[in-house]
Amino acid sequence: MEPAKLSTETANQVITCRAAVAWKANAPLSIEKVEVDPPKTGEVRIKIISSGVCGTDNHILEGKNEIPFPIILGHEGAGIVESIGKGVTTVKPGDKVLMFPLPECRECDSCLNPKGNLCLKGDVLSPTGLMLDGTSRFTCRGKKIYHLYRTSTFTEYTVVHEIAVGKIDAAAPLDKVCIMSCEVPTSFGAVFNTAKVTPGSTCVVFGLGGIGSAIVMACKASGASRIIGVDINEQKFPRARALGVTDCLNPRNLKKPVQEVVVEMTGVGVDFAFEAIGLVDTMVAALESCNLSYGVCVIVGAAPSNSKLSFDPMLILSGRTLKVAFWECIKPETVFQSWLLTTYKTKSI
Amino acid sequence: MEPAKLSTETANQVITCRAAVAWKANAPLSIEKVEVDPPKTGEVRIKIISSGVCGTDNHILEGKNEIPFPIILGHEGAGIVESIGKGVTTVKPGDKVLMFPLPECRECDSCLNPKGNLCLKGDVLSPTGLMLDGTSRFTCRGKKIYHLYRTSTFTEYTVVHEIAVGKIDAAAPLDKVCIMSCEVPTSFGAVFNTAKVTPGSTCVVFGLGGIGSAIVMACKASGASRIIGVDINEQKFPRARALGVTDCLNPRNLKKPVQEVVVEMTGVGVDFAFEAIGLVDTMVAALESCNLSYGVCVIVGAAPSNSKLSFDPMLILSGRTLKVAFWECIKPETVFQSWLLTTYKTKSI
Repeated sequence: MEPAKLSTETANQVITCRAAVAWKANAPLSIEKVEVDPPKTGEVRIKIISSGVCGTDNHILEGKNEIPFPIILGHEGAGIVESIGKGVTTVKPGDKVLMFPLPECRECDSCLNPKGNLCLKGDVLSPTGLMLDGTSRFTCRGKKIYHLYRTSTFTEYTVVHEIAVGKIDAAAPLDKVCIMSCEVPTSFGAVFNTAKVTPGSTCVVFGLGGIGSAIVMACKASGASRIIGVDINEQKFPRARALGVTDCLNPRNLKKPVQEVVVEMTGVGVDFAFEAIGLVDTMVAALESCNLSYGVCVIVGAAPSNSKLSFDPMLILSGRTLKVAFWECIKPETVFQSWLLTTYKTKSI
Repeated sequence: MEPAKLSTETANQVITCRAAVAWKANAPLSIEKVEVDPPKTGEVRIKIISSGVCGTDNHILEGKNEIPFPIILGHEGAGIVESIGKGVTTVKPGDKVLMFPLPECRECDSCLNPKGNLCLKGDVLSPTGLMLDGTSRFTCRGKKIYHLYRTSTFTEYTVVHEIAVGKIDAAAPLDKVCIMSCEVPTSFGAVFNTAKVTPGSTCVVFGLGGIGSAIVMACKASGASRIIGVDINEQKFPRARALGVTDCLNPRNLKKPVQEVVVEMTGVGVDFAFEAIGLVDTMVAALESCNLSYGVCVIVGAAPSNSKLSFDPMLILSGRTLKVAFWECIKPETVFQSWLLTTYKTKSI
């Protein structure tokens, strides 16, 4: 099957292309021929050039999240606008764009609140798998295929609401910038906007995958003096050290709980703890790792549906703060997009 | 038994006076004749004039907290310095003072950190019932009696570390200001320093006792436009309304969970939620009452020892912040003491 070509002739027509369809949980993705409807009013159809693979996609495929199947996964993608629906003004065919799992409608209560970040037109908290009009743009073998977070990037073409699309510089390398859709802003936002890591501070990062690695980079950029990295996969340690981790811990090789080791290493617990795995046990370990009076624990990993975070309230009664980073700097007004645009205007990666 | 008199002749001698001793949990306090040792280096012996009765004292008497018995309860008191130990410089005999359950040594890691509030010389988190030298200043019927949080105010005389004593204005009415030791600063700190309630915001307060009432006052002083008060005792509602509550809810009279009612009443959940009861169920209800994206939940009530706060991490993954107020503005440098001194210099209650 030949990949579909970008062409102005395809506008307003159904595109047939390849996509990785998840027919059900706990089964391999299946490369299928799918039909992608034209964009409706306020929507943008995008030719995907590259897509990140996030741990959350894997959680969903493992059946840990309540999401409807069959579905096209993937929620961080870079591509080129193929066509636009009525009313779309911020992008045009041919523009290089990123698509975001968390939109910004600029109209809802959350968007209008300076402290709000969770646009109510998103589909992340209780996913319907459908666009805002309650329908899907994908079919395969005559069946409706659901969208993931109204992005769905494991496909050659996707349809996304304009409020979830951001134009990027024409020089941006589309094979690399896809992780700017979720991984990088989530992590940098967690450090810069949520935790507000300060120079000279101590940090611990649970999980040294993509999110954790970007958190390490952001902690280092914030001037943290000590960054403790925690992972059960020691193969990640050399890269973690190269990015800024000063001490690596494998909990499986310790004689006591890792949070006790972190407190002993720092004397008083860290200033900032980050959980980038998505397990309630490591969330509590992160909370216990930070200073009992002024420590800030930021949870970045998404836990499985219906899991319970459970801890002695004295853990926070002493003064700890428990926060969460949820694509904390995706807003165009914030540092992320301006940084993104600036970066790709002045240098290429 | 005659109450002991304040006299310079008592300095350096054991004072015999009356105190309410809690011999064991789940038994009435017993008015006893107790011996109070002279203050050691860095300690202050105080004639108690008035003492608040906090819900936490009651929790302890009900055996809900791990605290050694027999003990003299009470941790918010106002009195007059009877004598001072060596090295004490900030107060002298005759000074009107408050004593605080959370000291400020100005030397430990927490005191030296601008964000820290939990002085490591306190005895609140894992109470020993003893002074910093590991001994007690109280005996009764030949037995050692434990201190509560190194304050113990249900007695005519007590001994407190200088770092937990604050001089107040000579015109301060000692029969009223005792609640400035804990109730008022805890509540005002929760609103001003922890939540940072903003003008025009919406608030909900779970529990309308002493702490809850002071939280309501502080929310009103912060310009909150709507303050929802929640309590199962409707007799508290008239006073709550007089202090600033705009809507009163009795969860027992509602057809659905109170947090759902609060979200419906406000459309999007409140900006700030306060829990002033100390039950994990109401802590979760408070968390669920606040806006999913930008709501801030501040827990003020102390939960029983070994209880578990348990909730779906998605509750905070969406953006809610969970914080705690722990005598948040007791620091002399903060608004509290300067406000206290100023208030009593310029007006009397």
